[in-house]
Amino acid sequence: MSITLLPDLLRTTRARTLALAAPLTDEDAQLQSMPDASPAKWHLAHTTWFFETLVLAPHLSGYRSFDDRWPRLFNSYYESLGPRHARPQRGLLSRPSLAEVKAYRAHVDAALADLLAHASPGVSALIELGCHHEQQHQELLLTDILHAFSCNPLLPVYDAAAPLKAEAPEQAWLPHPGGIVDIGHASDGFAFDNEGPRHAALLAPFQISNRLVTCGEYADFIASGGYREPLLWLSDGWAAVQAQGSQRPLYWLEDGSIFGLHGVQPLDPQAPVMQLSFYEACAFAEWAGARLPTEFEWEAARGLPGFAQAADQAWQWTRSSYAPYPGFKAAPGAVGEYNGKFMVGQQVLRGGSLATPAGHARPSYRNFFPPAARWQFSGVRLAR
Amino acid sequence: MSITLLPDLLRTTRARTLALAAPLTDEDAQLQSMPDASPAKWHLAHTTWFFETLVLAPHLSGYRSFDDRWPRLFNSYYESLGPRHARPQRGLLSRPSLAEVKAYRAHVDAALADLLAHASPGVSALIELGCHHEQQHQELLLTDILHAFSCNPLLPVYDAAAPLKAEAPEQAWLPHPGGIVDIGHASDGFAFDNEGPRHAALLAPFQISNRLVTCGEYADFIASGGYREPLLWLSDGWAAVQAQGSQRPLYWLEDGSIFGLHGVQPLDPQAPVMQLSFYEACAFAEWAGARLPTEFEWEAARGLPGFAQAADQAWQWTRSSYAPYPGFKAAPGAVGEYNGKFMVGQQVLRGGSLATPAGHARPSYRNFFPPAARWQFSGVRLAR
Amino acid sequence: MSITLLPDLLRTTRARTLALAAPLTDEDAQLQSMPDASPAKWHLAHTTWFFETLVLAPHLSGYRSFDDRWPRLFNSYYESLGPRHARPQRGLLSRPSLAEVKAYRAHVDAALADLLAHASPGVSALIELGCHHEQQHQELLLTDILHAFSCNPLLPVYDAAAPLKAEAPEQAWLPHPGGIVDIGHASDGFAFDNEGPRHAALLAPFQISNRLVTCGEYADFIASGGYREPLLWLSDGWAAVQAQGSQRPLYWLEDGSIFGLHGVQPLDPQAPVMQLSFYEACAFAEWAGARLPTEFEWEAARGLPGFAQAADQAWQWTRSSYAPYPGFKAAPGAVGEYNGKFMVGQQVLRGGSLATPAGHARPSYRNFFPPAARWQFSGVRLAR
Amino acid sequence: MSITLLPDLLRTTRARTLALAAPLTDEDAQLQSMPDASPAKWHLAHTTWFFETLVLAPHLSGYRSFDDRWPRLFNSYYESLGPRHARPQRGLLSRPSLAEVKAYRAHVDAALADLLAHASPGVSALIELGCHHEQQHQELLLTDILHAFSCNPLLPVYDAAAPLKAEAPEQAWLPHPGGIVDIGHASDGFAFDNEGPRHAALLAPFQISNRLVTCGEYADFIASGGYREPLLWLSDGWAAVQAQGSQRPLYWLEDGSIFGLHGVQPLDPQAPVMQLSFYEACAFAEWAGARLPTEFEWEAARGLPGFAQAADQAWQWTRSSYAPYPGFKAAPGAVGEYNGKFMVGQQVLRGGSLATPAGHARPSYRNFFPPAARWQFSGVRLAR
Repeated sequence: MSITLLPDLLRTTRARTLALAAPLTDEDAQLQSMPDASPAKWHLAHTTWFFETLVLAPHLSGYRSFDDRWPRLFNSYYESLGPRHARPQRGLLSRPSLAEVKAYRAHVDAALADLLAHASPGVSALIELGCHHEQQHQELLLTDILHAFSCNPLLPVYDAAAPLKAEAPEQAWLPHPGGIVDIGHASDGFAFDNEGPRHAALLAPFQISNRLVTCGEYADFIASGGYREPLLWLSDGWAAVQAQGSQRPLYWLEDGSIFGLHGVQPLDPQAPVMQLSFYEACAFAEWAGARLPTEFEWEAARGLPGFAQAADQAWQWTRSSYAPYPGFKAAPGAVGEYNGKFMVGQQVLRGGSLATPAGHARPSYRNFFPPAARWQFSGVRLAR
Repeated sequence: MSITLLPDLLRTTRARTLALAAPLTDEDAQLQSMPDASPAKWHLAHTTWFFETLVLAPHLSGYRSFDDRWPRLFNSYYESLGPRHARPQRGLLSRPSLAEVKAYRAHVDAALADLLAHASPGVSALIELGCHHEQQHQELLLTDILHAFSCNPLLPVYDAAAPLKAEAPEQAWLPHPGGIVDIGHASDGFAFDNEGPRHAALLAPFQISNRLVTCGEYADFIASGGYREPLLWLSDGWAAVQAQGSQRPLYWLEDGSIFGLHGVQPLDPQAPVMQLSFYEACAFAEWAGARLPTEFEWEAARGLPGFAQAADQAWQWTRSSYAPYPGFKAAPGAVGEYNGKFMVGQQVLRGGSLATPAGHARPSYRNFFPPAARWQFSGVRLAR
Repeated sequence: MSITLLPDLLRTTRARTLALAAPLTDEDAQLQSMPDASPAKWHLAHTTWFFETLVLAPHLSGYRSFDDRWPRLFNSYYESLGPRHARPQRGLLSRPSLAEVKAYRAHVDAALADLLAHASPGVSALIELGCHHEQQHQELLLTDILHAFSCNPLLPVYDAAAPLKAEAPEQAWLPHPGGIVDIGHASDGFAFDNEGPRHAALLAPFQISNRLVTCGEYADFIASGGYREPLLWLSDGWAAVQAQGSQRPLYWLEDGSIFGLHGVQPLDPQAPVMQLSFYEACAFAEWAGARLPTEFEWEAARGLPGFAQAADQAWQWTRSSYAPYPGFKAAPGAVGEYNGKFMVGQQVLRGGSLATPAGHARPSYRNFFPPAARWQFSGVRLAR
Repeated sequence: MSITLLPDLLRTTRARTLALAAPLTDEDAQLQSMPDASPAKWHLAHTTWFFETLVLAPHLSGYRSFDDRWPRLFNSYYESLGPRHARPQRGLLSRPSLAEVKAYRAHVDAALADLLAHASPGVSALIELGCHHEQQHQELLLTDILHAFSCNPLLPVYDAAAPLKAEAPEQAWLPHPGGIVDIGHASDGFAFDNEGPRHAALLAPFQISNRLVTCGEYADFIASGGYREPLLWLSDGWAAVQAQGSQRPLYWLEDGSIFGLHGVQPLDPQAPVMQLSFYEACAFAEWAGARLPTEFEWEAARGLPGFAQAADQAWQWTRSSYAPYPGFKAAPGAVGEYNGKFMVGQQVLRGGSLATPAGHARPSYRNFFPPAARWQFSGVRLAR
């Protein structure tokens, strides 16, 4: 990233995280509704810890850590960076307070400003990584608070503004001729390590939908008995449906309305369906006589004329499991733990969502979650 | 209770709950560290719900409930009073806020003041019950916040004042001749239903210790291998020790200090050992060549000269399981769910603790917890 | 026991265990349907291990153990006798075979015959204990195989003979005047350590039913909504009902018939209801406007004229938890682990059942199981 | 398959299953040591049920089912074929007996012989599928009995003959030029549906090891601290190692010997390491500075000169998750449940093992197991 843009990226990223947390009370910011989710306060602190530990401590001479007892609280999963507070217990950290975490942020921000003034390219790259890392947590902050609010019978509203009305284009199949395509990050700009190395892949001809599956279409799937017909489901998916007694997506209420960041809203038949698991996505596709695209198909089709709702509505489950690209090698040390060690048991999602920060996603971007994950802004684009 | 004392009891009880919560931040007040514990905020609200639901709604004409959606949040376990928010999820109620809960308290306090002015004896009795109920939750508020704080690696301090230095009297065995004794509540004053009916019981002669087991004595038990010798333990207790890898009481730290409401303190050999499970209490007694008293022995010996630390240090596990007294019959309706339905699988504790509100406990008082419970102010008085 | 009777007791006891296992195939004898139950083959071997380890090894000079690797397989819960094969994995011991276990029995029987010829009183007492221990396992063998068979959709029949028709006497309340009664084992004959010391207890006047609750009466309880009314249940019991979705006793089938040792039989309204948990017993008593007797009441009433079905139909849950009698002290060493270490978390059952060996039970006999146990021959005698 | 070969395949396959079960006692044949494993008796019956249900019932007119109550016992996972006995409870089916199951096999064999005499091509194809299905269960019978025996402290021996001595060729890297390769089943012979459609894939140049990783090499990995270094492991793998306290492969004993079908044997440094999880395979590869091949690389390299131990020692974990090939479409009905519904959460293994029936595997064969599975004959072939 050019030396003139990085300060701006850092400043806006850091400010946006605070802005996202602004509607939350101190109590809201501490909620952890399941082991896979984290409190908003923890997101605020962890993203700061990332800068402190990976950037400031090794690269800003004379840097004084804010509190020596905190790194173990806010280290997420970096084995090479020492012991960690157990993930399912993040919601038990009433101390430090939200105010103290904000002071931590300010302390680190000030030090980063110092460092930026004369940062080497290597250090700049780390700071840029920290910004993209924080952007990921911005989306997680929203998915996690939404899940937490969904556990409160009062169904608190994160954003009282009315949701934007979605306009679904007429469904159409976009043909792709297949052949050898280049996959992975190409430009000079930032990318995560898992987006490379860029490499060639061979595709058979395929068709992909111009838009995401809508809530109306998904409601038809339900109405036709989709959650009661085992033959539509992957075996693990059917087991999950049975175990959970699922009859609809996680945030669809019994009365036909849907809970979201704007509170309870009537089902909008034109809006993309979201918060689906991979299992639900596959079952819907089977019912619809179609399938999910592979992540390579998705990336190849991304630039086709008419390819709508690419990255602004919901992440799109792909039929690809999360695996290393040919020649991928994790970096040594803590930075290498960022992506590589999760490359099993997860499915790739492509695109981006209405909760993804502007400028964060790329056509080569690889999001990933376990197939059972239902609390992300995750939807379906069909292929055939 | 005399009509002149009840307003005072109500006022001081309600005020003391708020005072106990005063050192807590909004975030602290929301902590729920295990399904058996509840957030402080929930205790504040539940005790208020009790008055609203059992006293105001049926007995104050024209009473307007504070919020119709809240009863399901703050009903603890009353099946006859409708559906309830799942107990393990009490910590997920960031809304209502602590401030709103305090407003709820004020609303109910005002209505109670109205009602008190012309309350029938039956209603007065219900209000008195509500006060004693709230006093129970005052102790739970302290036990629960201490457990929650113990889960935070920062080990927050509830009360920064130095703990009182305990003075253990010289240990002595107090003899009791046995014979027929009267057990259960006798006077006109308040008592819970489980303290009656008063009835005769026959005791063999026994001896009981004049004081509680000290931390110094318990440290000797540990040092002599008490947590490694299965023959000292009840079978369920040994299984718990093995499953948890226990080597010492819950709040004893590896370095020999002890965590408590006043933070981490050096082990005081004279102080009564606390936060023991029934299993630990029995294993210690076995090691010491003694036993736990039955609840009847405890009650009979309570008035013996020299019987120290009766109710001001730690509840005392007894060898009696929690069962109905002869002729006990639960009241019909919700009030009847208060005690009777828990009369299996629990052991009786007698006495009172440093966390018990003044005036709350009585010689006939029956506290009860499952034998594995380790987070209460529960200690040991030996018998033989 | 007189020196002339012990050989006979030993012979008949050992023979009866084999006879009970005779209807079982090798495969049946290996079934373990839950951690709390054991395979029939394991019962055959464990009772033999008991004699080998506690009698032969220390007391028959020159005794050669059958197989040095087996004690760890067949030690049940004796911590003082070395490591044990995990209880839930007893069903995984296809080796030794049933035939090898029978050879083990013969080997031990032969050695016991040798020893008996010149056994000291102390050794004779241990052999007598081994016989009573084996009788306990005879009943467990039946309860456990019945549970195992109930898990097979084919519902195998243990005994193809038709069940005896039960004749319930007309229900009547037998009055007892209360007062001081002697409790515990009195005579010179055998008793387990937990039946003593004999001691006095004080009872209030009470009434006890002359017979057990019948299947017909229990069917009325079900029909009137007993499994749907939480106020009838102890809190733990209601939680169990909810978690298991219980609507009837464990072996009652949906079509109104009942599975038992004689296979599926139509409900006999006169037959005592069995295989109830303590929770079910209490809920029924509550519904019937009565209660369970304490174990002292039961023992005191045992000799009343008209007290029918004392020990020949079903064990009778009492309202007493399993606790040491005044002055009880477990013996040192392995024998001391027999009873004492289980004295928490269990309820006492009195009487005996149709599966109890003749001569095994006594009026002072204390059977015990956790309150949730549903697979024993356990029924209800009401008191009030 | 040619009409003349099918009867022979059927006969030899059916006979070999019985031969594999011959060393087992009735009790051995009933062992189920975990939900993922099945009793040998169940394998014998299930493979027979497959023929009865999918071949005989629909295609042999007048066929009389052996026992109408059995299909629910022996249906494995076919939702379209009715309710099933719960998988974790297969070990509780002492009835039908092993002898009855063998009679079932004979009954079905006789009917199949009738049908074969005039089977249509479609029916012949189903019979052939049934044979390959049964061959799969032959390997599972061995993996499952080995696991069951490993749970018995006596460590029973399945085959008392001495194991063959393995000869590991000198390790060498075989280069492959990459390029477009054809993947999937090609010939006219039998293949499972998941091996097609045949399609082209593009590979980068790579190298693959000429042989499997040996026990000696794996012992070096352990000795160098491989099970204690989290950075070598995938995140899920490290979590499994921590949760299980793993320090070596499942059947490696503490004393350095290894348990297998031939009993406990000294570690043979030249023998291929087996019974690894995908996690262990990846950690070893990381430690060795290499990686696992993809399934496409494996298939492309399969024919390279020097490619040893392809299918006769251990299945080889690949870096490919189990997913549908382009254009894959499951067949309608029960046959379609065979493979497709498992295409998530599993990794592909290629090759074959010493437990795989001769003639069963093919270069295009796709075996699959969850990454945590450790009880298969699964090893590692490295790539780079």
